[in-house]
Amino acid sequence: MTSSDKIWTAGLVIIGDEILSGRTHDKNIGQIASWLQVQGIRLSEVRVVADIEDKIVEAVNALRADNDYLFTTGGIGPTHDDITVDAIAKALGVPVIIHPEARALMERYYADKGGVNEGRLRMARTPEGSDLIPNRKSGAPGIRHGNIFVMAGVPHITAGMLDALTGQLEGGAPLISETVGGFIPESEVAELLREVEQAHENCQIGSYPFFREGKVGSNFVIRSTDPESLQSCFDTLCERLGENGWDFTPGGI
Amino acid sequence: MTSSDKIWTAGLVIIGDEILSGRTHDKNIGQIASWLQVQGIRLSEVRVVADIEDKIVEAVNALRADNDYLFTTGGIGPTHDDITVDAIAKALGVPVIIHPEARALMERYYADKGGVNEGRLRMARTPEGSDLIPNRKSGAPGIRHGNIFVMAGVPHITAGMLDALTGQLEGGAPLISETVGGFIPESEVAELLREVEQAHENCQIGSYPFFREGKVGSNFVIRSTDPESLQSCFDTLCERLGENGWDFTPGGI
Repeated sequence: MTSSDKIWTAGLVIIGDEILSGRTHDKNIGQIASWLQVQGIRLSEVRVVADIEDKIVEAVNALRADNDYLFTTGGIGPTHDDITVDAIAKALGVPVIIHPEARALMERYYADKGGVNEGRLRMARTPEGSDLIPNRKSGAPGIRHGNIFVMAGVPHITAGMLDALTGQLEGGAPLISETVGGFIPESEVAELLREVEQAHENCQIGSYPFFREGKVGSNFVIRSTDPESLQSCFDTLCERLGENGWDFTPGGI
Repeated sequence: MTSSDKIWTAGLVIIGDEILSGRTHDKNIGQIASWLQVQGIRLSEVRVVADIEDKIVEAVNALRADNDYLFTTGGIGPTHDDITVDAIAKALGVPVIIHPEARALMERYYADKGGVNEGRLRMARTPEGSDLIPNRKSGAPGIRHGNIFVMAGVPHITAGMLDALTGQLEGGAPLISETVGGFIPESEVAELLREVEQAHENCQIGSYPFFREGKVGSNFVIRSTDPESLQSCFDTLCERLGENGWDFTPGGI
């Protein structure tokens, strides 16, 4: 494997009782997954854990051992249930400090909002050795410590932090995809899909069924890092579907 | 701890490259979390893993060791990328069989749709020792093996399977909640929240900030299994917010 073939991966730990209780529907998995694709990095696993320090430490350590990058969302606000910074510091074996630059940011941001109090100062705490990730939407910054990225739980704030990180992380060839869809029951073409995938070793075909307008159908998504293999696999799949009398739509339906 | 105090927990493994690639936004975490709450069972952790057998086995074994129940979604369709049944069987150390009842279901369901083929027969495969979970929406059933529940990935099919399981699982006292909200920056009341939570040992207070109508605000959610503690915590929180001059709305905003 040459360095250009390296597959870069990331793990994601979502920290939040509100997701596990069903109160809040997570939007960060989807937006982080899509953003990583564009950076040429594959999201390999996500864990959603409760606001319990040991659980966060365990998930962070497991996923950073397995991946090039680790992202977390949630638990970096000013309240007592925001314990992500402490958990990350524990996982890394470093102390928590008040980051001077973050403190200055907090002081500026809250200058005309009553000043910095104990809760607000919590948002300037970082594991020792961290850099800050700019937050364009509210006061508290995200935190970068080596290949660990600690971000907000509120999706539009997370989006701003991802924006600030765009193009900053080394990745490989992005995974690209082509889709073919139709009112084709996947159970009718399962063998055909398997054969086409096996004939194109750099491609994976995923089958995503749906039920629409009273009819069952599927979208077949081919993924590859190699544009030529992808095109060849796409052409073969269309050809085979046509030969078998299926009506299909390139791009999916 | 008496048996009535036992906290019943569940883990959830979401199987699917389509979630990790960002193509499909997960809806199962939210609906399963909400459903479990009503059954008196707490969702303690979620893992989203790729369609890779070893990854599924590892996640299933980790979460079933830590919880009373384990749920999975995804990967039980007819195509080559549907490998959940094999992975669960491997995790349990039992063979995969063609389940006679599932086979009969498939034969009835596909009788006027071209009959059972190899792909469709895949959906009658189960780990040995399984019962079926009815699927009211399409042909393929879910699978129950002891405290493991293997369900569809398509959210409305999963919903039907959850419906079929309602009231079937032993749980404890459901976690109940009360919410207070307002245009109150959480960083202004962080200390107050901590004090109120500490004074009510059976209660947890979560703080969920938002930005709306150009103003920051928060909802504070108190959770408890004890209705009296919950009411007392709620009353104290409202009283303390009022004493400090905050305008708040019971029920949240």
